[in-house]
Amino acid sequence: MPGIIIRPRARIFHGHDWVYASEIQKVFGDPQPGEVISLKDFRDRPLGTAIYNPQSQIVARRISRRKQKLEAEFFERRISQAIELRERSGIDPKLARIVWSESDGLPGVVVDRYDDHVVLQTLTLAMYLNREIIGEVLVKLLNPKCLILRNDSPMLAAEGIEEEITIMHGEKPDPFVVEAPTAEGGVKFEIDLLDGQKTGLYLDQLDAHREVAKLAKGKRVLDCFCNQGGFALACAKAGAASVTAVDSSEPAIAAAMRNAELNGVEINAVKHNAFDFLKHCEDQYDIVILDPPSFTKNKKSLNNAMRGYKEIHLRGLKLLDKEGILASYCCSHHATRELFLQNIVSASVDAKRSLRMVASHGQRLDHPVLPAIPETEYLKGFVLQVMPSR
Amino acid sequence: MPGIIIRPRARIFHGHDWVYASEIQKVFGDPQPGEVISLKDFRDRPLGTAIYNPQSQIVARRISRRKQKLEAEFFERRISQAIELRERSGIDPKLARIVWSESDGLPGVVVDRYDDHVVLQTLTLAMYLNREIIGEVLVKLLNPKCLILRNDSPMLAAEGIEEEITIMHGEKPDPFVVEAPTAEGGVKFEIDLLDGQKTGLYLDQLDAHREVAKLAKGKRVLDCFCNQGGFALACAKAGAASVTAVDSSEPAIAAAMRNAELNGVEINAVKHNAFDFLKHCEDQYDIVILDPPSFTKNKKSLNNAMRGYKEIHLRGLKLLDKEGILASYCCSHHATRELFLQNIVSASVDAKRSLRMVASHGQRLDHPVLPAIPETEYLKGFVLQVMPSR
Repeated sequence: MPGIIIRPRARIFHGHDWVYASEIQKVFGDPQPGEVISLKDFRDRPLGTAIYNPQSQIVARRISRRKQKLEAEFFERRISQAIELRERSGIDPKLARIVWSESDGLPGVVVDRYDDHVVLQTLTLAMYLNREIIGEVLVKLLNPKCLILRNDSPMLAAEGIEEEITIMHGEKPDPFVVEAPTAEGGVKFEIDLLDGQKTGLYLDQLDAHREVAKLAKGKRVLDCFCNQGGFALACAKAGAASVTAVDSSEPAIAAAMRNAELNGVEINAVKHNAFDFLKHCEDQYDIVILDPPSFTKNKKSLNNAMRGYKEIHLRGLKLLDKEGILASYCCSHHATRELFLQNIVSASVDAKRSLRMVASHGQRLDHPVLPAIPETEYLKGFVLQVMPSR
Repeated sequence: MPGIIIRPRARIFHGHDWVYASEIQKVFGDPQPGEVISLKDFRDRPLGTAIYNPQSQIVARRISRRKQKLEAEFFERRISQAIELRERSGIDPKLARIVWSESDGLPGVVVDRYDDHVVLQTLTLAMYLNREIIGEVLVKLLNPKCLILRNDSPMLAAEGIEEEITIMHGEKPDPFVVEAPTAEGGVKFEIDLLDGQKTGLYLDQLDAHREVAKLAKGKRVLDCFCNQGGFALACAKAGAASVTAVDSSEPAIAAAMRNAELNGVEINAVKHNAFDFLKHCEDQYDIVILDPPSFTKNKKSLNNAMRGYKEIHLRGLKLLDKEGILASYCCSHHATRELFLQNIVSASVDAKRSLRMVASHGQRLDHPVLPAIPETEYLKGFVLQVMPSR
């Protein structure tokens, strides 16, 4: 089998599964892009099996510490383990990310399940080349009404994969409704897998929706960057006095309004740039939720992203009434928990508001964090309450 | 009022309430140790009121952004707010830290409540000098059977306060029993406020005890540094197959055994140095809990502390059976969450175990974190599961 020899002190020796170009000492046996290769250390000792793509910044991603082929039995074993893990984590595997890439030992394979509908993404070249086998395994294990390959992530370009949305199994799905456990009695969402802005719901935030909703009874809630209304609807269902949901996307606002109707709740859904809305808003709120899309995809743009966060934190805090609550989330791995919290503190000093931490949140357990692969931990959020002035 | 002028760029301008000696531009009006002083910036603008102790590294601790005297009305207002906060946080204020120093706007005042028994600590000179007023307020608000001043913290020396344990109100209490909500049905603990190694229970860990206990049914549990048995008893009550609890302190082991009897559960309590126990242990466990006392009180000793953690992490991980769980806690502010997690990762690489994060814990909400005062966030813990080898 062709392979690469890895330089000393590379991250793979610290428990990671990635090999960057700069960590390669030598390539042997002429491996082809998308192929399975063997990894060796500089003393020729085996380090396992990886998938290879020299076009990517991450040249190799380990899939096993032993010899391993990409074959149906392998995919079936890994996917079954992943599903079982969700079940044991107390997550309903019928509304969950049931496979999440490196965290489930399948780098680049992402599978979301919405009841009878399954959405596959193959974000690495090797997994893309094996998409048919993966699809067959998913059909065998889950017997879904339909299986969609939804390869429309911006990450595909780095791997040299064309964007593509295909129905791999079953019929073209109409929009359908799922129920998320984000407030008592559940919150319904309309899912349109072929036309949504992303693959259905933000599953990673379902726990956070529920936790914030627990604080919302009788409160005036502002949900900025609301998307299809995850926080807004959970808060409305939990008995908020009023809910305003803001997003700059027309389809998102339309979805949030349809979802409100589905759930028999009223929300004030506003199509507006959230930055501008926060700037010009003259109302006061008891809870302000900030859950923007990632402002940064890399380390370079981190400073700009943090400036953006500082601005919305400052403006959000100013809209809070006495003992109001800020719930702010950041989904970029590059902004550490400390950096993000410091950003909120800095805004609170400018806003002359002292804050107390009520809760800190991470991604839901269907996006498992492997601490040895720090990139698997990306979502952080804080719920903070304005303290009575002293 | 005498006071101090604070240098530009001091931490107080970033939302903190402390003034270090190096941050003082000028002292005016000859303030006395333990006195209330006014704080001003370098343009003579008022920054509020603080308590003063030139003997301490932290020369001034702000108690208000306005003018404020240390008088009964002030203490009553702050203590009432603190109690109300616990109630609103869903914590039973009859078994809680009801006042926690800076976090409740009373630097140096710590009050723990165990049913009808109240324990006061005054860890700053000004609060020590006002202990009688504080005591009277506590008696007025809580009407306790007894109020004990338990000033035996090593922090007292830095403030020039003598160690002292006094009954301020009521009668000398016999040992009594409280029930903590750390497992279904509650877990009973015998509390001896005049003779325990510390003031009763580790209240900051009660949530963590319950969360770990939820994973313990049918499992073989090892609780290292068990103290009076917080984790061990919660796990036993939750139906663990077996529980071994290790501590080097004879009184701690005796307390853990008495508490096991009180709760009608069996635990194997071993008086042993936990480092040595972990080293020589030949049994395997499903859950290993590591909750040592702080290995470090300052930044200087942080490296040593981290070496100690690396050792117990490595040994703890080696004792874990297939898909076993490590729950590890660190109560030093100086070890950041990132540093502590990295320490576990590093041990896992040496132990050849890959880990997945199941939960991350912080201190209970009766020890409120004020992000602008980073020192208020000290407790961090991770629950990690060994993954099937890939």
